[in-house]
Amino acid sequence: MATPESNIDVLIIGAGPAGLMAAAWMAHCGVNARIVDKRNTKIFCGQADGLQCRSLEIFDSLGFADRAWKEANHMIEIVLQQGRIERFFLENIKKHSKDAIKVERGVLPESLEIDLSKVDDDAAYPVTIKLRTLNEEESTPPQAANASKIPDGLFRSNLIRDDDEADLIKKAQDRAGASEIVHAKYVIGCDGARSWTRRALGFELDGEATDFIWGVMDIIPITDFPDIRMRCAIHSAENGSLMVIPRENKLVRLYIQLKEVAPDASGRADRSKITPELIFGAAQKILNPYKIEYEYCDWWTAYQIGQRVGTEYDAHGRVFLAGDAVHTHSPKAGQGMNVSMQDTYNLGWKVALAAKGIAKRDILNTYQSERRRVAQDLIEFDHRFSRLFSGRPAKDVLDEEGVSMEVFKDAFLKGNLFASGLSVDYGASNLVVKAGDSLKQGDGSKVLKSVASISEEDFKKKQALASGLPVGMRFNSFKVLNQACARPWHFQEILKADGRFRVVLFAGNILDASQKARVDNFCVALDAPDNFLRKVTPAKAPIDSVIEVLTIHSAKRTDTELLRDFPDILHPFDSHTGWDYNKVYVDDESYHEGFGDAYKNYGVNKQRGCVVVVRPDQYVAWIGELEDFDDLQKYFEGCLLLGQPAPNGVNGTNGTSLPVR
Amino acid sequence: MATPESNIDVLIIGAGPAGLMAAAWMAHCGVNARIVDKRNTKIFCGQADGLQCRSLEIFDSLGFADRAWKEANHMIEIVLQQGRIERFFLENIKKHSKDAIKVERGVLPESLEIDLSKVDDDAAYPVTIKLRTLNEEESTPPQAANASKIPDGLFRSNLIRDDDEADLIKKAQDRAGASEIVHAKYVIGCDGARSWTRRALGFELDGEATDFIWGVMDIIPITDFPDIRMRCAIHSAENGSLMVIPRENKLVRLYIQLKEVAPDASGRADRSKITPELIFGAAQKILNPYKIEYEYCDWWTAYQIGQRVGTEYDAHGRVFLAGDAVHTHSPKAGQGMNVSMQDTYNLGWKVALAAKGIAKRDILNTYQSERRRVAQDLIEFDHRFSRLFSGRPAKDVLDEEGVSMEVFKDAFLKGNLFASGLSVDYGASNLVVKAGDSLKQGDGSKVLKSVASISEEDFKKKQALASGLPVGMRFNSFKVLNQACARPWHFQEILKADGRFRVVLFAGNILDASQKARVDNFCVALDAPDNFLRKVTPAKAPIDSVIEVLTIHSAKRTDTELLRDFPDILHPFDSHTGWDYNKVYVDDESYHEGFGDAYKNYGVNKQRGCVVVVRPDQYVAWIGELEDFDDLQKYFEGCLLLGQPAPNGVNGTNGTSLPVR
Repeated sequence: MATPESNIDVLIIGAGPAGLMAAAWMAHCGVNARIVDKRNTKIFCGQADGLQCRSLEIFDSLGFADRAWKEANHMIEIVLQQGRIERFFLENIKKHSKDAIKVERGVLPESLEIDLSKVDDDAAYPVTIKLRTLNEEESTPPQAANASKIPDGLFRSNLIRDDDEADLIKKAQDRAGASEIVHAKYVIGCDGARSWTRRALGFELDGEATDFIWGVMDIIPITDFPDIRMRCAIHSAENGSLMVIPRENKLVRLYIQLKEVAPDASGRADRSKITPELIFGAAQKILNPYKIEYEYCDWWTAYQIGQRVGTEYDAHGRVFLAGDAVHTHSPKAGQGMNVSMQDTYNLGWKVALAAKGIAKRDILNTYQSERRRVAQDLIEFDHRFSRLFSGRPAKDVLDEEGVSMEVFKDAFLKGNLFASGLSVDYGASNLVVKAGDSLKQGDGSKVLKSVASISEEDFKKKQALASGLPVGMRFNSFKVLNQACARPWHFQEILKADGRFRVVLFAGNILDASQKARVDNFCVALDAPDNFLRKVTPAKAPIDSVIEVLTIHSAKRTDTELLRDFPDILHPFDSHTGWDYNKVYVDDESYHEGFGDAYKNYGVNKQRGCVVVVRPDQYVAWIGELEDFDDLQKYFEGCLLLGQPAPNGVNGTNGTSLPVR
Repeated sequence: MATPESNIDVLIIGAGPAGLMAAAWMAHCGVNARIVDKRNTKIFCGQADGLQCRSLEIFDSLGFADRAWKEANHMIEIVLQQGRIERFFLENIKKHSKDAIKVERGVLPESLEIDLSKVDDDAAYPVTIKLRTLNEEESTPPQAANASKIPDGLFRSNLIRDDDEADLIKKAQDRAGASEIVHAKYVIGCDGARSWTRRALGFELDGEATDFIWGVMDIIPITDFPDIRMRCAIHSAENGSLMVIPRENKLVRLYIQLKEVAPDASGRADRSKITPELIFGAAQKILNPYKIEYEYCDWWTAYQIGQRVGTEYDAHGRVFLAGDAVHTHSPKAGQGMNVSMQDTYNLGWKVALAAKGIAKRDILNTYQSERRRVAQDLIEFDHRFSRLFSGRPAKDVLDEEGVSMEVFKDAFLKGNLFASGLSVDYGASNLVVKAGDSLKQGDGSKVLKSVASISEEDFKKKQALASGLPVGMRFNSFKVLNQACARPWHFQEILKADGRFRVVLFAGNILDASQKARVDNFCVALDAPDNFLRKVTPAKAPIDSVIEVLTIHSAKRTDTELLRDFPDILHPFDSHTGWDYNKVYVDDESYHEGFGDAYKNYGVNKQRGCVVVVRPDQYVAWIGELEDFDDLQKYFEGCLLLGQPAPNGVNGTNGTSLPVR
């Protein structure tokens, strides 16, 4: 029987948080995609747990932040087990893909080939992957023999040897049948620290392992230690360190330094020695004179700290690596899952728009230039933090080898700042118009510039039009009101992750005649058939399908009227449902939720306004005056494939008279 | 074949919002219950839509307020279709009853008998009901023949005649088999305006129908009317009135006065004349000179305004009526569903605790004394409001028959105030210790007093201990911090609807030696084996099973320590899971969510504190000093069945030494 072959736009390998985030984009953008994972089980406990602010914003853009918020234990970052997060993703993907994208578990990739003659062809499927379906026994992760009935995570730990996996592949190959060949436009490898995809590409991680071995346990503690429900670090004089992370329900996660286990000559520790009893014994020593016991353990694992980052994030703009496949570090900073998800939150929409023929393929180069720097920052932070944490406390000020409590406390506080994820700042590219190039981002491997290159001085002027919206950073959120119904919205709530770019028109004081004339002129250009908005919109599709125009004005809401004061292109008309009442907002006081003061907070002039482009992942891409329409046009010509404008009237907004049924 | 017979603690008739709320209580309290509905379909559109503040608080206590908030259109009250609310209830009931309580659809009650010799016997099942299962055709509501494919709600409208239902019962009786006999401890009739349960009891509604006929349509409007996304009322000179309620998605609900349809000699309107075309034509006339059209109609109905209230809310404390079964009114005030759900939110826990043998049966008398007055207020409000709304606008100040715009506007604003549902104030009873009796509530049918009757003067002194927590009103919510982990909580979030009473100990300044001595004395009494807390707790059950003790102190959080400063009874020890970290809270500033200033807002002295009892439905029941333990004891003796204290040590909290595993 011939091996079955099929085409797919996007194949995602690995169904952890990074892979699921990529799949979520495909579902939200309506892209033909598959996601496979070699293991047959979902995670129900343990694994990563911290969720930083930016991750919550991302969940909100996908539509499930409220569920995470509700279930989690709230600290400065919120804590939630990975199993729940994966469940939220699965339900979200199911809903948005209408059941088309499902995780195919127990499916192992066996070979990967890229046809270099086709990599520049938009219509081609240049990546060929052979997949094999495992049987149940093969795909169930082996559990440590001595772990009794407590689930452990050693199979995902870096203490496992690569040959375990080779064995798995060999076993599967011995079996007959159940393999298939898939031709993909794009492949995203999210298959973890020992990434099969990375090894198939022959790519390396730069960095090193350390001598520090740590255990992790999720338990319900019975203890007289007073701060057991606070996030805290215990730095004992002789017995090493311990970190307490309170979790949902009564669970507490403990990170416990294992001084009794040391790496062997090869630099790797022997995982067979590591048991929950050994880990908990270490915790009891560190906490002494306080007492700690437990009856219930939810999950445990152990790992060796290693900090590594990938030198290449993609092969030929067709196969991409994300998450632990391109950066590994210690889990204690609670950052790994966040940075991994944010990798594919950055990559997913780019791949989706390229696969759909909406965006130019070369926007894919920005993935490495934007994300590698973030991984490097994370690893630098983790490096400093882990050594401080695993080190011996200083006995006094003269003890230079010891770690002083002052230095430690300082690092801990800075860590919280870094950990929010809101400080990420992407450099110049064809997606971000600012001065300089990607070398400034510390990534020399791909030098990217803004298509419309801009001088430092000119950029300063444009940035000053919206000083609270730094180009390259995520669009900050303040409350505005819907013009039509006065409902207050956090503006970020409107920037849903649906793959659309947004042009945000800060229309200023629309009741002033000269400002109204500026807005009208801008709208005439926007509505012109040979300009970007109509050219990017597919025939017969609504005018807001690819780029959504949103307006925030600063006049009094009750003095203005949607149909009277705003050109139709700002609230398009549809013959089935009438005008769109969800496009125009106002910076005004709400009836019962206060005043967002958005113009002031965004640093925008209340009289004159400005225009801001927001990427599908909510990063600020371009800022200009209402008169800078040509530059705006150039921005979209630089990153999107502009087709022919649809015939007049097909995609709406012509004429303001009320049609008769 | 003999008709099958079975016993059930609680039988709920009708699965609208009132019935589902009752079922939710049974699920949350673990009561053996069934819920039946004669119709086989759930509601997916239309019906009631406004959700007032108090209803949202109630949803929060059940654990699903966030879902309603997320899906709804936010106005001053939020708008959500009844179908979604019923769905939230169904999922909540499924989860909390572990699938035991399911709505049995297409099940019709045929007869009801109360065995008067057994009504005072706690162990008896004195109510006998015969149930018959309908086939699919019988239980599908007939749709108006002329309504094309748009779902209509006429079958629930008061324009339908009672004989439609008689016909349904007759049809079912003609069929063989599929009937059963159920013996119930309690029956709750939530079967709507034409309640079968009410008629089976022979009870009447007091009140009258009016001449005003209204149509209702849920449409996506295509219109140039500027305020179509605002809640507003249009009062035309000659063509009647119209009310606009924006809804979720693009839907808008219109309430439209039908001047062309008049009641016949019997006082009832002919529903065969009423079509969507007739209703929409009336809307177009009222809105003229603005234009309105639609392509999509989601649902429509029509009703005749009638205001009626039941004279009796229960029969022998065994069969209860709730919701539309005991009060009907026009839907425009958006209150019906809220008041109906709040009826059973008041009743459900009382029936649950009586059925479980935890509470004395005579607390059931408070259902009528507390809820009938609310229905009367609602009907009075609706009466005034409807007449204003259906009336002709005044031509000038001399036009006495017309309604002046000033009067109308005033009523509209007052309506919003009334509509929050937060102003409900229950009178004295064995559940609420305040001065006076239930006559003061305007309900002369059952005169109830506080068990420990209290003079006006004494009550004033007690109320002054917590002036922001009026006895008889719902426990207001301010933010406090968890002592152990510093997480901020709205205090109401902790008052979950699980059937437990709460003793809230405002412990005051716990770091002051004399105040600490007062707290210690109170705790010694609380912990004593012959006092209410241990006596009410079943053997082997946790000490917080029936009454939960919660503490809010006012010292600095970081200066206090849970295990050191608070007696064990305030954070009970469990040998499997250690101390309870979720019982002690502090009125202190949070790290990142501001300062709730709870003592100040509750009007409690920061040094001395006080003690407050909260009912399972979050109403304030009793206030006293820390020295008023005897009064507190009397309160619980008055409403609960206190058993024998459990043997020492069985229900926890003895000794503070750490047990060895």
